[in-house]
Amino acid sequence: MLHAPTPVRASLDPAVLDALRSRFGEQLDLRESIRTQHGSSEAHFATVLPDAVVFARSTQDVVDLVNICVPARVPIVPFGAGTSIEGNAVPVRGGISLNMAEMNRIVAVRAEDFDCTVEAGVRREQLNEHLRDTGLFFPIDPGANATLGGMASTRASGTNAVRYGTMREAVLNLTVVTPDGRVISTARRARKSAAGYDLTRLYVGADGTLGIITEVTLRLHPIPEVISSAVCGFATLEGAVDTVVQAIQLGVPLARVELLDDVQIRAVNLWSKLDLPEVTTLFFEFHGSPAGVAEQVELVRGHAAENGGGDFAWSNRPEERARLWKARHEAYYAAIALRPGGVGWTTDVCVPISRLTECIALTKQDLERASVPATIVGHVGDGNFHVIFSLDPDSAAEHAEVAAINDRMVERALAMDGTCTGEHGIGLGKQPWLVAELGEAVDVMRAIKRTLDPHDLFNPGKIFAL
Amino acid sequence: MLHAPTPVRASLDPAVLDALRSRFGEQLDLRESIRTQHGSSEAHFATVLPDAVVFARSTQDVVDLVNICVPARVPIVPFGAGTSIEGNAVPVRGGISLNMAEMNRIVAVRAEDFDCTVEAGVRREQLNEHLRDTGLFFPIDPGANATLGGMASTRASGTNAVRYGTMREAVLNLTVVTPDGRVISTARRARKSAAGYDLTRLYVGADGTLGIITEVTLRLHPIPEVISSAVCGFATLEGAVDTVVQAIQLGVPLARVELLDDVQIRAVNLWSKLDLPEVTTLFFEFHGSPAGVAEQVELVRGHAAENGGGDFAWSNRPEERARLWKARHEAYYAAIALRPGGVGWTTDVCVPISRLTECIALTKQDLERASVPATIVGHVGDGNFHVIFSLDPDSAAEHAEVAAINDRMVERALAMDGTCTGEHGIGLGKQPWLVAELGEAVDVMRAIKRTLDPHDLFNPGKIFAL
Repeated sequence: MLHAPTPVRASLDPAVLDALRSRFGEQLDLRESIRTQHGSSEAHFATVLPDAVVFARSTQDVVDLVNICVPARVPIVPFGAGTSIEGNAVPVRGGISLNMAEMNRIVAVRAEDFDCTVEAGVRREQLNEHLRDTGLFFPIDPGANATLGGMASTRASGTNAVRYGTMREAVLNLTVVTPDGRVISTARRARKSAAGYDLTRLYVGADGTLGIITEVTLRLHPIPEVISSAVCGFATLEGAVDTVVQAIQLGVPLARVELLDDVQIRAVNLWSKLDLPEVTTLFFEFHGSPAGVAEQVELVRGHAAENGGGDFAWSNRPEERARLWKARHEAYYAAIALRPGGVGWTTDVCVPISRLTECIALTKQDLERASVPATIVGHVGDGNFHVIFSLDPDSAAEHAEVAAINDRMVERALAMDGTCTGEHGIGLGKQPWLVAELGEAVDVMRAIKRTLDPHDLFNPGKIFAL
Repeated sequence: MLHAPTPVRASLDPAVLDALRSRFGEQLDLRESIRTQHGSSEAHFATVLPDAVVFARSTQDVVDLVNICVPARVPIVPFGAGTSIEGNAVPVRGGISLNMAEMNRIVAVRAEDFDCTVEAGVRREQLNEHLRDTGLFFPIDPGANATLGGMASTRASGTNAVRYGTMREAVLNLTVVTPDGRVISTARRARKSAAGYDLTRLYVGADGTLGIITEVTLRLHPIPEVISSAVCGFATLEGAVDTVVQAIQLGVPLARVELLDDVQIRAVNLWSKLDLPEVTTLFFEFHGSPAGVAEQVELVRGHAAENGGGDFAWSNRPEERARLWKARHEAYYAAIALRPGGVGWTTDVCVPISRLTECIALTKQDLERASVPATIVGHVGDGNFHVIFSLDPDSAAEHAEVAAINDRMVERALAMDGTCTGEHGIGLGKQPWLVAELGEAVDVMRAIKRTLDPHDLFNPGKIFAL
């Protein structure tokens, strides 16, 4: 990392440590190796060690931790799978890293209602494995095998969002432990409700700053009768993006449509042992009835051909599909590996789809001039795309260069009435942009934070400075 | 009404009245007839007159009103079309009724992005009329020709929600005037964002208690290639509900599916001059491609037949469809008219769909024993249904009887993990139930209210007692 680990705060007050030891026993871990693991992220942020790690096994554990830490003014930072991208779980003010991984019980699956309840530490692949025999699946797929609590907290979305929505739409109800140690349920299981303020949506995307999510009730979807995947390379970046924009504007219910630029395809070929032509490429997935999928494929194939698309290779075979999407999921690691010893810096923006072609094309021009490897990967059906840089971890010049490209990309997106983050969250990395994007609305957010967490102890230092 | 109008508070302080007169001129109305109109609702709630009515023409008008009223501690209650059902716009503590009807400009339609921005006083029929030539439509349809600001504030949904979602999903961005007189924008126009707390969803459904919505940016949808409607009568209530539940569980993308019980069909026949068989009936609408719609119709027809459904009459003809849905939209007035001089009391609950058949059947038993006419109308694809009673406005006994039936219905829904209101909002009528439904989560709502509206002046007395 560029920066040495920030010195941790003075170690925990002995009385607090005693209380934690006596309540949590082996669930408390003070080893430096474990603290380091919980203080680092997958991206370029400086590591900051928590004072201790607590492994929660129940909602009551979280309540008890809150009741020890809040009176002693010790911060608590929830930690899921550690796969967030904007430093969301880095304990920048020390305190307790609250590992949720052992809260991994699937509490209930109610196939007849298309919903389930899971503990916050359940991972999405575990859930889909569990659901396999029900004919249902949980569609939200950010790539990483994240925890569902973490996905709710960061308002994650990913490859299926164009069809199935994001965590905002997927969550029916949350169990949350508040900074005053109460356990609340934000909603019932009805599909819709007009009962009071929408607290579910307030906690979804709050990065753990307002409460700690311990259980999540999720909407599920029927596994489609037919799933087809397709790959198509394009002569130009613009042709690929235009194909998607036109399909969306025609109302084609694409289940997934992912853009990988030429550099990303090269990275994927190397990492995942594929031999795709190294041009801008779209990965599609179509869900529906046999007739419905055939209709969609024909429509999209026509638009692709008109926009300089090459061979439109499609397949209903599960193993083919799995190979393709495995490569897509590994895109982040593949991009970083373009440079031996590189560290990843990834950023995302989302713009109205009418501006997407222009936004991606201008960003690509910046990347072509950059001195570090950089790829574009996009959930383009939503107007959302990512850039992944691979940096020398010790080069201040490269950090500055990437920061400047990132700034221009976000400025461009905001000028197009877009957002500084489509799905990674504000965390640490996007804080300078939140105010540029939403102005005084951020004061309303701050007022809510101050009221619900008056001592600024729940994941402090994230989203905004208080 | 059962209760005489509550005496209004002492009239406005003369200095406030002067300030309002000088700023608003003819936009200020003090006439009793106008105040009475703004103090009454379409339902059974007692009329409470505001001290004055102000007709807003711009966001700046709202800001200036807030800056006059808040320092003087005068309540402000936004008023859209006056079609809300739970007393949401009744100014129970007097003050200003803020009529938004003149803020009826369609600010922008961006067909290529499937979105539009409208002032809060635009009504949904006006918007769809305006959109007619774009190939797009705004699907959310609560029946009444409500304003879009009011629909956002009450988190309205209605007949199309099973396919297109509710106002929660439809709103991309809101312009809101806060109690401290600031104008905020809650989001940008990107389809998704992870930028900070989801203030959009906080104001959607807040009943105007946290801020006054002055502009709304909405998602639009392509007008489907084919729209088919169908009507089917059933031998039993259970058979009708089971048909819907099975179709939903199979993943049939129904655009609309409405249940009207035998009494409601009788009311509709009388009111809308139809001659439908007076049995429990489902109204369907199917959207899609020709092949897609044909698939859906065949699937549903099969389930209807297995569940005791009669003739499955379907049609692609727009005039046939319009006649049917006009009758559905008039169901509320038709039900009230079952009794000359009756006043309406309507209530709604929403339950997980696996419990819907049981919930409706038990409710129907209660209604059959009731001494007042009562009908069931349901957005059954969501698990949501309404009961409409027609009461003698002066009978305390009837009010008590209906209140008891309503109580049992809500208790039943809550026991099934449902909600006390699927789409009408808490307003005045459902306040006793909000705490039963969400417990201490209501304290979190109260904390947010106290922070954002510290003097309790924005639609005070709604959703909960502070």
